[in-house]
Amino acid sequence: MPLGKRSDFGDARYAGVEVNYAHDIAGAMQEYLLCGFDFVLASLVQPGHEQPALQLPQDGSAVTPVIREELMLTSATWGGQIVGKVSSWIDTDSPEPELAQRSTAALQQELSWAAFLGLQAVLLPTPQQQHKNAFNFAQVVNQALGGLSHMALWLQLPMTEPPAAQQQQQQQQDTPAAANSSSSSSSFDWFEYWCTLFTLCEQSSLLGVALVVPPDLPCKRAVARWLAQPLKALLLPTSVFTTNKRGYPILSKAHQELLSTAYRHNVQVVLTGEPLHKVAPAPPQPPPPATPAPESTIAAAAAAAGGDVLPFAVNDPGESHVLRPYWEYLCYLFRRLDGGAAQEQVEAGYRDYLQAPLQPLQDNLESQTYETFEKDVTKYACYQAAVHAALLDRVPDDKAEETVTTLMVVGAGRGPLVRSSIAAARATRRKLRVYAVEKNPAAIVHIQRMVRCEGWQEMVTIVHTDMRDWQPPELADILVSELLGSFGDNELSPECLDGAQRLLKPGGISIPASYTSFLAPVTTAKLWDAVRNYKDLEHCETPYVVKFHRHCTLSPPQPVFTFVHPNPQQPPDNNRAATLRFPRPAEDGVGVLHGFAGYFESVLYKDVTLNTHPPTHTPNMFSWFPIFFPLREPLTLPAGADLITHMWRKCGKHKVWYEWAVSEPVACPIHNPGGRSYYVGL
Amino acid sequence: MPLGKRSDFGDARYAGVEVNYAHDIAGAMQEYLLCGFDFVLASLVQPGHEQPALQLPQDGSAVTPVIREELMLTSATWGGQIVGKVSSWIDTDSPEPELAQRSTAALQQELSWAAFLGLQAVLLPTPQQQHKNAFNFAQVVNQALGGLSHMALWLQLPMTEPPAAQQQQQQQQDTPAAANSSSSSSSFDWFEYWCTLFTLCEQSSLLGVALVVPPDLPCKRAVARWLAQPLKALLLPTSVFTTNKRGYPILSKAHQELLSTAYRHNVQVVLTGEPLHKVAPAPPQPPPPATPAPESTIAAAAAAAGGDVLPFAVNDPGESHVLRPYWEYLCYLFRRLDGGAAQEQVEAGYRDYLQAPLQPLQDNLESQTYETFEKDVTKYACYQAAVHAALLDRVPDDKAEETVTTLMVVGAGRGPLVRSSIAAARATRRKLRVYAVEKNPAAIVHIQRMVRCEGWQEMVTIVHTDMRDWQPPELADILVSELLGSFGDNELSPECLDGAQRLLKPGGISIPASYTSFLAPVTTAKLWDAVRNYKDLEHCETPYVVKFHRHCTLSPPQPVFTFVHPNPQQPPDNNRAATLRFPRPAEDGVGVLHGFAGYFESVLYKDVTLNTHPPTHTPNMFSWFPIFFPLREPLTLPAGADLITHMWRKCGKHKVWYEWAVSEPVACPIHNPGGRSYYVGL
Repeated sequence: MPLGKRSDFGDARYAGVEVNYAHDIAGAMQEYLLCGFDFVLASLVQPGHEQPALQLPQDGSAVTPVIREELMLTSATWGGQIVGKVSSWIDTDSPEPELAQRSTAALQQELSWAAFLGLQAVLLPTPQQQHKNAFNFAQVVNQALGGLSHMALWLQLPMTEPPAAQQQQQQQQDTPAAANSSSSSSSFDWFEYWCTLFTLCEQSSLLGVALVVPPDLPCKRAVARWLAQPLKALLLPTSVFTTNKRGYPILSKAHQELLSTAYRHNVQVVLTGEPLHKVAPAPPQPPPPATPAPESTIAAAAAAAGGDVLPFAVNDPGESHVLRPYWEYLCYLFRRLDGGAAQEQVEAGYRDYLQAPLQPLQDNLESQTYETFEKDVTKYACYQAAVHAALLDRVPDDKAEETVTTLMVVGAGRGPLVRSSIAAARATRRKLRVYAVEKNPAAIVHIQRMVRCEGWQEMVTIVHTDMRDWQPPELADILVSELLGSFGDNELSPECLDGAQRLLKPGGISIPASYTSFLAPVTTAKLWDAVRNYKDLEHCETPYVVKFHRHCTLSPPQPVFTFVHPNPQQPPDNNRAATLRFPRPAEDGVGVLHGFAGYFESVLYKDVTLNTHPPTHTPNMFSWFPIFFPLREPLTLPAGADLITHMWRKCGKHKVWYEWAVSEPVACPIHNPGGRSYYVGL
Repeated sequence: MPLGKRSDFGDARYAGVEVNYAHDIAGAMQEYLLCGFDFVLASLVQPGHEQPALQLPQDGSAVTPVIREELMLTSATWGGQIVGKVSSWIDTDSPEPELAQRSTAALQQELSWAAFLGLQAVLLPTPQQQHKNAFNFAQVVNQALGGLSHMALWLQLPMTEPPAAQQQQQQQQDTPAAANSSSSSSSFDWFEYWCTLFTLCEQSSLLGVALVVPPDLPCKRAVARWLAQPLKALLLPTSVFTTNKRGYPILSKAHQELLSTAYRHNVQVVLTGEPLHKVAPAPPQPPPPATPAPESTIAAAAAAAGGDVLPFAVNDPGESHVLRPYWEYLCYLFRRLDGGAAQEQVEAGYRDYLQAPLQPLQDNLESQTYETFEKDVTKYACYQAAVHAALLDRVPDDKAEETVTTLMVVGAGRGPLVRSSIAAARATRRKLRVYAVEKNPAAIVHIQRMVRCEGWQEMVTIVHTDMRDWQPPELADILVSELLGSFGDNELSPECLDGAQRLLKPGGISIPASYTSFLAPVTTAKLWDAVRNYKDLEHCETPYVVKFHRHCTLSPPQPVFTFVHPNPQQPPDNNRAATLRFPRPAEDGVGVLHGFAGYFESVLYKDVTLNTHPPTHTPNMFSWFPIFFPLREPLTLPAGADLITHMWRKCGKHKVWYEWAVSEPVACPIHNPGGRSYYVGL
């Protein structure tokens, strides 16, 4: 049964358990499923049948049924409740030719057998580290992937730190305990091995990782890099659990956090190993949770967290299973997860989902789009604060009575900025004349109604036209617009405001006054895979609006292009070119670059800002997701190698587009030359 | 007029000349063409019009005619006899924004203008080195390439050494002269810049290089790496010429060699600069050639080299041109080129041409293919020597009368190995019984005729069957076959001979006795471009038989797979896996990997070998061109970085195939998994 269904995470989470091979697989299944687990992890091969005879079909096509119980279970059980485990003796890269040959044949055979059974996933054993990089293993896995349509392969790997980080730690805490911890696995970085293997296997969508959770966890950045990879499962040995006073298995704070992260990122948890906590059979009182422990029962904890109450009855036969306390603890951790703010829950559905950026100049927006925008209270409060400050600067207190300030909202939409501006005027007791300029006829209807309802007919003039064509009866003191896209200038705010600049008096104020885009290199295997699945060049050279979720930033964002309004440069030139050097500390180890995340910072007026740049993000503002510029091919970045990236903003007669490229540590082709795959129409 | 037409080089060679811009371009053209040159290199912009006004169309679409003489020349002249030169003041990457902006606009404008005129090629100026890597330049060039259909862009670059090689030289010869030579250009490697630019521009087929020939040439390896790139022209300044006793311009030995290499590789030569050799106007006696000087006149030299006699009359008006002596010297160098052996001339037509490897097991060969093979006298002499040695070892002199040796030729074709074997028997006075086994019915007819004509009916039994199916009346002492492909085992010699092994007596001899394939990483932009032009995955994962010409080996070949016959391993396993580490000395600088060249060495019997591996290549043997394993994407190798490559030979039930990959310095996907793109049928 699932750990619980929680709509705030978009899906249920499941937990599996490793079973040591028993002859009665059907009975074992029954027992573990009753205990609460959703699936079992079981050897593909019966004990005593591990090593097939040497005389093998050379292509591994003829599979001998290594599990005799095939007929004891239905296809649905094989497909839905069993993850197969490939034999761990297999060593395709052994220096002994005979063992290597037998291993290759056995691996091919077990994978064919699993595919025949219709398993959803198979766990591949960790290659022998002493042979360094297991390339024959990569060859067999890659060849197998070519023949699979849906069965996933999960490679079991240890969770290690990058070598440079290990050294650093060992220097810092030169204690015997530290020397025995995760850093003892010498300088071999399994993440680097994974990157090579994944590239050799062409980043197959069916290939993933299952990480073994160690007793001593690596640093957070070392874990974070795995989340941007296709991490499918955590293998959690019972030996990692500690014991609370009452004898129940619990996890350390750090491990609890790791599991929370796993749950939040859709990573499954599989319990492995023998039961080590023999809890006195004392139900119906469930064990108290570990730390923090305000709730005294699992059911209460679950209820408090808004989850379902545990659906098992007190005398549930599975409840007396020796692994039951572990399962209950996993449940407890899942159910007490903080679902986040309401807005975060709304956004959950957009995680790692590619959206085309808006083209507001070419297209008229739909009413629903306006409505979504208008929900962002923070954004309009910022605008109001900016107009407020501008009015105070523009009109001294002693002139407040006699001076009427002319304010134009260009691109007024359904009127929220008109409302904010008038609110600012009221608060500052300044007199205002507002022109609301909007090209979308449907939006105009909304403004008209708003003006009528509020009785602003005297104050507000509605102008139904494109701001670039309008001949105003007078010039403006303040020009207000909200034309920024996820990357700042990408919805052509610069071109629009340059065109509208003639509406402004000399010395007049533009809100926003300036904006700067930011770019950061990211690992995001999931998004890259989604882009690739379009199977054409265009989609590989198009930026997307994305709520990044399973990603990892390889270096902090850096500023790219800045635009200032009113534009002092005449004639204006909105072409831009930027070369960015992203430093990467050696401790971070090898990195995989799938593309770039884009943000912006904007100054509305003086110290009133609107930012999506993560370090300065305006709190509680949610109008913009970041933008994602993909790379056609992922690039592997050696540890410590700086990344040099180029970004161009190019302006043609009828369109504006970006081009981007990497030149170091290795060059890639310039993406989207001439705007061939993506542009914004003027 | 061409420097001469020579069928031994497959094409005529042309020479161009740079003209300083004159207002009367038509007159200048006339003058230079009369002098002998085939095309002129001329500025696209009239003096005084270099720097366009700042107010430019932003997309460079509206081109103002910067050369006013447009109408003075026909399209054919523009297209066939003028290479345009982009203004050298252009500096798209200047730190001064205004200059960068003007430069970008001017570059776009000049290129559009050249395309409008229908030029075949345009020379791009060398970017300013002090800005290090000119990325805006790359952006503009790449965008322009996207809009071109046939006009080539040649980037003018200095011919430099890799930085490590420069340092080495400076240490070795620490003289003031050396310090002033080519090594003075600090540690900037223009080759590396080129590699980056070419990658940024997606290895466009229209982008090439024109190298400026310096007075002091870099080492040969530094030149060789350029030949594997799209090197289109050498720009040869008049200042590089020295003067002979009679005042005529001549070149140093090293420069002569460079020009010979250029001619052989289809690279054009363009003379640049002012005439510096004012030769006394004393025709009709042409100048004596420089060194070596056995021929006393150009006409004689040309005639001696088998070229055409110069077609100009003594009183040719162009003959008095001040650049005429330079042109005559270029002519002389071209005409005296050694055309190579007859076989080399035959092979010239196959240079850098992709051929599919044979599938002799699946297909029956055509008579012409046999005929081509049989022309290789050397190969059959080697086979005869091998049989000779085997017979002497097998039958001692005192048993020669009484012993009949049974020899089987498996895959006898039209019978050349039967002939070689019988010749060996005669020479050794050994008695022979020959079975000629062949599956191709057409070839059988030929053997039958041969046996009849030679009166060998008693000695030779013709068996029309597949060697794998044949039930022989007796077993063989010696089994002779010629089943090797360009990569040794790639035409399935191992599988055939394993199958035929049952025909051999215990202790019998197989000729060949063993063979080993070799692999070397190569740069070959031309072949890679040809592979890419198929525009599908299959062709990017298929090996080709190729006569490599414009290529450069990045590290010496290394042994890959070895097969021994008779095969001691039972049951035989012809799967193979190899990991090769190719060292690359830092002095070689950056390298570009397009794929791998494959060769073989085979031992026919004891010390009789047949090799295509370059260091041990059997002299005068021409039956095999090397094989080329392409990479789907070229990889740039940093200076001094070793290359790790993997090669697999995989055997299925009905087919055999190779897979290959690179894992260091960066990984690439495994090519041809499961033989999806290419295999050899069993």
